[in-house]
Amino acid sequence: MEEFKNNLAGVMTIGDEILIGQIIDTNSAWLGQELSKIGIKVVKIVSIQDDLTEIVTNLTDTLDQVKLLFVTGGLGPTKDDMTKVAIAKFLCVDMYFDEPTFAKIKLYFERINRPMSAAHDAQCLMPVGVKLLNNSMGTAPGMLFEHNGKYIISMPGVPYEMKSIMNEEVLPWIKTNFASETILHKTILTAGEGETMIENRIGAIISTFPPSVKIAYLPSLGQVRLRLSARGDNPTELQSTLNHYTELIVAEVSELVYGYDESNLETELGKLCKLKNVKIATAESCTGGNIAARIVSVSGSSSYFMGSVVAYDNAVKTSILKVAQSTLDTDGAVSENTVIQMAAGVRKLLNVDVAVSVSGIAGSEGGTTDKPVGTIYICVHNGIAYKVRKLNLTKTRQLNIDTTTNYALNLMRKFIADNY
Amino acid sequence: MEEFKNNLAGVMTIGDEILIGQIIDTNSAWLGQELSKIGIKVVKIVSIQDDLTEIVTNLTDTLDQVKLLFVTGGLGPTKDDMTKVAIAKFLCVDMYFDEPTFAKIKLYFERINRPMSAAHDAQCLMPVGVKLLNNSMGTAPGMLFEHNGKYIISMPGVPYEMKSIMNEEVLPWIKTNFASETILHKTILTAGEGETMIENRIGAIISTFPPSVKIAYLPSLGQVRLRLSARGDNPTELQSTLNHYTELIVAEVSELVYGYDESNLETELGKLCKLKNVKIATAESCTGGNIAARIVSVSGSSSYFMGSVVAYDNAVKTSILKVAQSTLDTDGAVSENTVIQMAAGVRKLLNVDVAVSVSGIAGSEGGTTDKPVGTIYICVHNGIAYKVRKLNLTKTRQLNIDTTTNYALNLMRKFIADNY
Repeated sequence: MEEFKNNLAGVMTIGDEILIGQIIDTNSAWLGQELSKIGIKVVKIVSIQDDLTEIVTNLTDTLDQVKLLFVTGGLGPTKDDMTKVAIAKFLCVDMYFDEPTFAKIKLYFERINRPMSAAHDAQCLMPVGVKLLNNSMGTAPGMLFEHNGKYIISMPGVPYEMKSIMNEEVLPWIKTNFASETILHKTILTAGEGETMIENRIGAIISTFPPSVKIAYLPSLGQVRLRLSARGDNPTELQSTLNHYTELIVAEVSELVYGYDESNLETELGKLCKLKNVKIATAESCTGGNIAARIVSVSGSSSYFMGSVVAYDNAVKTSILKVAQSTLDTDGAVSENTVIQMAAGVRKLLNVDVAVSVSGIAGSEGGTTDKPVGTIYICVHNGIAYKVRKLNLTKTRQLNIDTTTNYALNLMRKFIADNY
Repeated sequence: MEEFKNNLAGVMTIGDEILIGQIIDTNSAWLGQELSKIGIKVVKIVSIQDDLTEIVTNLTDTLDQVKLLFVTGGLGPTKDDMTKVAIAKFLCVDMYFDEPTFAKIKLYFERINRPMSAAHDAQCLMPVGVKLLNNSMGTAPGMLFEHNGKYIISMPGVPYEMKSIMNEEVLPWIKTNFASETILHKTILTAGEGETMIENRIGAIISTFPPSVKIAYLPSLGQVRLRLSARGDNPTELQSTLNHYTELIVAEVSELVYGYDESNLETELGKLCKLKNVKIATAESCTGGNIAARIVSVSGSSSYFMGSVVAYDNAVKTSILKVAQSTLDTDGAVSENTVIQMAAGVRKLLNVDVAVSVSGIAGSEGGTTDKPVGTIYICVHNGIAYKVRKLNLTKTRQLNIDTTTNYALNLMRKFIADNY
């Protein structure tokens, strides 16, 4: 066990729905990310049942190891929520009826013109000694408790409510009250090569790392993120150490690097389109709009993304995108010539500079001996030049769609970087 | 604490990347889901650091509470992987070099025509006494250990590798070796009303539940899932109890129910299109292809989904979808008349029976006093009749896109159910 420090935190998520896998715990990831940015280190995330004894036992155990314990889940109005009662029991305090919370809930229901229910009364019962945290996105307030010099922060499990309480109430409070050791991260985003190949190329650099610097390889669907971490007491020195090793690594694998930290392919593509004043569009068959949806996930994408034709049916490929029927007959819909014509077609139709197109067999149906499931063609085209890439992916439909989307975004990004 | 039973399981995920939120732990959710289907109950999920002492300590603690412990993460070829060494230390055994694993990795690299690296040698070192589990999706095998009558199952963290080992090796082994109490779940999927409103309507039914039956409300973006669970020793009796309460609840909120269990809006929409022989298309502005992408995520969707026009730019709305310039001038792109013309336009263009269209201000930019961020119009149209819905959503871009997508899928589903 590492020496106890003031900057250690735990996250406890409560609810059977996580344990039986009906919801995926995205709250913990978000908390880990935001806390690590301000030097608070999450050392344990634990998910347990919505059960009084379980919660009390785990509060005791986890609070032993950390200074700050973040609890999410179990503050909603319905009857399967147990967290508040468990915290009161753990702290050995009674519950009281909180009038301001009641007034807020009443007002909310008047505003949306719906009746309040008895469950909302129970939502106003609070453990004595709580400091309530304003929830501007919902009716259940967050709760802060001090216990033997440690802190429990309890919040609703609904992600945007939890985030709003954290951003408006908790993170500012942590920043002012907890001086901490600094942990700095720098993540180098790469696309186009595997984890092992990258490690071979940068292994010599990593062997020169001081003990305070670590690297982690985070592979996913056509991409590998390289996360460097540095810990210590001098932020300026840490930053310069981190910058030094980042530069060395980037110099070694520069052709694979597309961005840093929280960025992603669609954000970097967007920056490039704005910088080079390039308008783009997509023509999609097997990805079914996924590439467009990823481009549009970037706020402000309307300044460079004109639109997309999802030509799922072959009739749409010929009638709208003007793919020659003879090409479909001789080469098939999943072919180099088809994607070239799709890209050229959508480029002309939507009047853009650069278009990307995709046609392939995502699965689970439709594979043949010649073109098994996972055979996918991508083309990027600017009217003068084009580039085609053929992928041989897996047998899993959604994996193929997501991986192809990454390759298509990266192919377009590189094409624009090289040609504009 | 609940009485110790043979069917209790724990999940331990290892890696700093989860704790600092750089990846979201989807493995645990999948494990919880698959295990609960065969009567194995996950009572704890814990995420810890990629640190030898941490892993050993938590192996000891968690194995105290469960019969089966699933460990994911930390078996890859690169240097930040510690799991295998920690398990050997926990079991007090040495490591040996496993020739069959080496042969398999060598063959794999020959096949993809890339060189092996030294890191792959380390991947062949295994704790003595391990039973190796075949990994048909990658080079690192899974590992099964018996320890004092309990079992540790260690697998790579890459989701599709973990799932493949579970499906091919672990789940069959559990089914044949662990008789267990039965846990049955039935989830009723609803769209269109909030959690509290639903609880008010079904509260009287829930108050008649026997202690063996529980309900959980799982709200998300325009939907609420109602999960009923029943536990006991007699599967037939449990199933009939569960069916009984499911029927009562569905009768009470029938107009909101669109499906059951693992289904989702796009799957149910697809079933309906096939059943009624209806061809569909989408015309999307602010959702940017998300609705199409959700429809295409269903295998076999090519039989009813023809395609989509993502008309992100207004020029695409007029030139391709034939929205009148005068409508854009007087009503604006975010208006009832625009979505009606978009739906009608794409319906005609792609020659389908029913089309859905969306135009709105997803944010974060583009809001006005009249039409703030979150103002979104949806239209579903079949050439004879149409239905428009206006949404007033939040300030958060991706939340607006995802919520709108759910509403659009549900609106189309209900329209087809009512009109065909």
